Amino acid sequence: MPITVYQPAPLRPGTLRVIPIGGLGEIGRNMTAYEIDGKILIVDCGVLFPEETQPGVDLILPDFSPIRDRLDDVLGVVLTHGHEDHIGAVPYLLRLRSDIPLIGSTLTLALIEAKLKEHRITPYSLTVREGDVEQLGPFELEFIAVNHSIPDALAVAIKTVAGVVLHTGDFKMDQLPLDDRITDLRAFARLGEAGVDLFLPDSTNADVPGFTALEREIGPVLESVIAKAPRRVIVASFSSHVHRVQQVLDAAVANDRKVVLMGRSMVRNMGIAADLGYLKVPDGVLIEAKKAVDLPDNKLVYMSTGSQGEPMAVLARMANLEHQIEIGKGDTVILASSLIPGNENAVYRVINGLIKLGASVVHKANAKVHVSGHAAAGELLYCYNILKPRNVLPVHGEYRHLQANADLAIRTGVPEENTILAEDGTVIDLRDGVATVVGQLDLGYVYVDGSSVGEITDADLKDRRILAEEGFISIFVAVDAQTGRVIVGPEIQARGFAEDEDVFDAVMPQILKALSDAAANGTRDTHAFAQVIRRTVGRWVNTQHRRRPMIIPVVIEA
Amino acid sequence: MPITVYQPAPLRPGTLRVIPIGGLGEIGRNMTAYEIDGKILIVDCGVLFPEETQPGVDLILPDFSPIRDRLDDVLGVVLTHGHEDHIGAVPYLLRLRSDIPLIGSTLTLALIEAKLKEHRITPYSLTVREGDVEQLGPFELEFIAVNHSIPDALAVAIKTVAGVVLHTGDFKMDQLPLDDRITDLRAFARLGEAGVDLFLPDSTNADVPGFTALEREIGPVLESVIAKAPRRVIVASFSSHVHRVQQVLDAAVANDRKVVLMGRSMVRNMGIAADLGYLKVPDGVLIEAKKAVDLPDNKLVYMSTGSQGEPMAVLARMANLEHQIEIGKGDTVILASSLIPGNENAVYRVINGLIKLGASVVHKANAKVHVSGHAAAGELLYCYNILKPRNVLPVHGEYRHLQANADLAIRTGVPEENTILAEDGTVIDLRDGVATVVGQLDLGYVYVDGSSVGEITDADLKDRRILAEEGFISIFVAVDAQTGRVIVGPEIQARGFAEDEDVFDAVMPQILKALSDAAANGTRDTHAFAQVIRRTVGRWVNTQHRRRPMIIPVVIEA
Repeated sequence: MPITVYQPAPLRPGTLRVIPIGGLGEIGRNMTAYEIDGKILIVDCGVLFPEETQPGVDLILPDFSPIRDRLDDVLGVVLTHGHEDHIGAVPYLLRLRSDIPLIGSTLTLALIEAKLKEHRITPYSLTVREGDVEQLGPFELEFIAVNHSIPDALAVAIKTVAGVVLHTGDFKMDQLPLDDRITDLRAFARLGEAGVDLFLPDSTNADVPGFTALEREIGPVLESVIAKAPRRVIVASFSSHVHRVQQVLDAAVANDRKVVLMGRSMVRNMGIAADLGYLKVPDGVLIEAKKAVDLPDNKLVYMSTGSQGEPMAVLARMANLEHQIEIGKGDTVILASSLIPGNENAVYRVINGLIKLGASVVHKANAKVHVSGHAAAGELLYCYNILKPRNVLPVHGEYRHLQANADLAIRTGVPEENTILAEDGTVIDLRDGVATVVGQLDLGYVYVDGSSVGEITDADLKDRRILAEEGFISIFVAVDAQTGRVIVGPEIQARGFAEDEDVFDAVMPQILKALSDAAANGTRDTHAFAQVIRRTVGRWVNTQHRRRPMIIPVVIEA
Repeated sequence: MPITVYQPAPLRPGTLRVIPIGGLGEIGRNMTAYEIDGKILIVDCGVLFPEETQPGVDLILPDFSPIRDRLDDVLGVVLTHGHEDHIGAVPYLLRLRSDIPLIGSTLTLALIEAKLKEHRITPYSLTVREGDVEQLGPFELEFIAVNHSIPDALAVAIKTVAGVVLHTGDFKMDQLPLDDRITDLRAFARLGEAGVDLFLPDSTNADVPGFTALEREIGPVLESVIAKAPRRVIVASFSSHVHRVQQVLDAAVANDRKVVLMGRSMVRNMGIAADLGYLKVPDGVLIEAKKAVDLPDNKLVYMSTGSQGEPMAVLARMANLEHQIEIGKGDTVILASSLIPGNENAVYRVINGLIKLGASVVHKANAKVHVSGHAAAGELLYCYNILKPRNVLPVHGEYRHLQANADLAIRTGVPEENTILAEDGTVIDLRDGVATVVGQLDLGYVYVDGSSVGEITDADLKDRRILAEEGFISIFVAVDAQTGRVIVGPEIQARGFAEDEDVFDAVMPQILKALSDAAANGTRDTHAFAQVIRRTVGRWVNTQHRRRPMIIPVVIEA
């Protein structure tokens, strides 16, 4: 369904404008812009990972066009937590203006600073913690602790003359988290009593009934799997999941095993987390990979990346026997992670490979080795009832998640007309406690491919999908400008169409005849000749092969 | 992990050779060959549907090479049931020898005959039913009722001088099936008491703990969802799932609604099922689509295909507003189906589209509207304990399923060394109650693409994947055979690489210079010139774009 694009009226003084730039209609590239009285605040700036219909794309960025010409008005970027879908696009934003201040917690800033270092950018940053209040031009920001699958996550309350907004970032409400840092419902209650005009909650698990299980419940499962493992244990998880890794370290200690961290991002992130005190590394439990060879197999746990079946990550390489650690009978592999939709085939390919090599594979389908980082419906209901927000704009989710979250809001008493189902680029104005949709911008996907940003377009991706499905046939000829006679070629090249090049022997005479007929009828124009070739070859592949490869005629005058 | 290929010794008289040709290491293209004393029996001949790493492929067939030169020795093909992954490759087999007899139940044969009609083949067929015993040369076949997600499924016991084999086909053990036709455990018990030498069980759900819920439990859920639906109801399911459609018809009747069947395969299969009495159509419940417009929306149920998000099927077209039925607020869509791994993104795309149009979407994640057709671990344990087979060869599954099934066998007392984890092409000989792996054939994937069978190779698919990921750049030049000078071109064509063709202006002089340097150094050979172009363009895209498109230089002499 195409969206209807319309420009909002100019923003009046004292009105807060909210534009979700990314994260609505997708899980990823979260970014929201807030504007009042000529100043802009951004919350999060993440990337989206491509799916199978976007082949070859490395990353997808939010479309910065709503703020691109206003960068000097941006007072700062609040980063709610350190996950890629919330911080991953910061380097691309800072390429446009490198001195935009970044505001976030200690761990969040440490993670983005490490990433920016790779891009050779040193950011201006402002470290905040829960309870802090910062005035940024017309925005008063209050930071509130929330619990998520990475430590040190923050929600932010944004107070302006237009009203109070609560933007949760990603969160859940684990009541017994490993670091005792719970989502601060007292702060939510206080804000709610004072009046929240607009609430932007995480929608990821809004369609999941009930409550997310405790992270803490995973520890004993890991411990008992490791206790029974006759040989090596390999645990794969996300490289930023500090508490999951913490539980692996603790389970290793309980079983008198040493842990080797594997994979560049795992080593980097856990180094940061340990340095800052978020990961408590028991004395002597971590060892280098090269020291591990001196230990018996039943004294080792490898903590690795690749839980989503990424072909170049440690785990997939192990499954293909392309890694120095040769998986064999008796090894135990634990996928202590979610299975992100779309990755199923890749993950099962890795699992099949590991099992074939003799490993036992433990994953969330056969043991409780993962819990989500996002609030399920039951938790969101608590939030709505504590906050009693006037208006709700569900963010962070596909349409089905946003809709489910809106339904929860309505069921707790938020009037349906105050529940906004928006898309990326929807413009919402808040004034006097009333939130109104006032425009819809036309925002696109910005693809990163290699070193190019935004050069690959949807048209290129369409070409790629056709090339993938059908391959191509290119036909080159040079014709004499005067007579229209073929003087070089036809030279046919094809890829992805058929192994056997003899297949084109059948169409060659047809092409020559069609070109010579066209020349005899007075055709001299190269475009017209190209059309003749396209029609001839197209008809032939359709009738003879029932296929529709891309046909690329190249005719030049010589 | 590459498999080790080795040829078996010639088959001795009185030994039964079993070759799983397809279905091991994959869910699909099930096919097993049995040979004794020069005669061959085939059980099933299905297709596999491609995944995202096999772009553009329509179907994947079993590799017929183990029997291709022995077709005259094939006495028949037993088809256990009418699903595509068990019958879909029959037309391709019969193209090689059209008078191979097909043996199966009434419904199974009706479905394959309808399919063969499209291929203009009239098969020789032999209808059997549960309890029947047929002698086919050295094979005595006993057919046994099994319950599955399509009616009239059969297991087959194959008795030869070498021993007794039980091949289940797909099955589960619903104890209260809609048609009262349960998996015949009395027959299993009788065979077990007499002695089963080799058991080939369905492994699809061997890694699912417990028991499959009753198909019958879905009916009340459908009925209550339809009862609450304010407007139209659209139910999507598999087009061969007679009992699911039966329950939709019954639920429609209970709610005083009419049903319109939609989608070519749904209409065809349900026509066959109704004609043969497998689908009991209540009087007047089915109406034509064109009559439906005369009825109020709350008197209608549409039964459609497309539950896996297939882009051309009814449901996806509805979600894109490309179907005559315009989905809107108040419509209810029920996905009464599984979600086959790999289809998640496509299915969620459809669900998001439908929700955006205002529909409520009910699916197995939020209501009990689907149960599997395959025996879970608990059911398989019953089978093992009733049969007490001497040897087990788990079939029908990825490696992880086969392994899980083998574990179940071992836990019920089958000796580990009698539990065979095989792959497509493994050769197993059975003699005197002993099953031994005696060879491993090298079987490949046979891709159907358009009208071509086996022309597309893995190399083509690799090309397609590269084209999809990176696009291509082709560079055409014609050089003078005598001087090596460029006389036509370079003409550059690219697709999927960059929208803006000016991007190549930068590399054009480099190509010309490299060619002229090569000519000055005496190069005249077109291959050498092509290498020069490939290197020049490759270096440029790598350093300037950090990309690796396919580079296709075409150099001809003129």
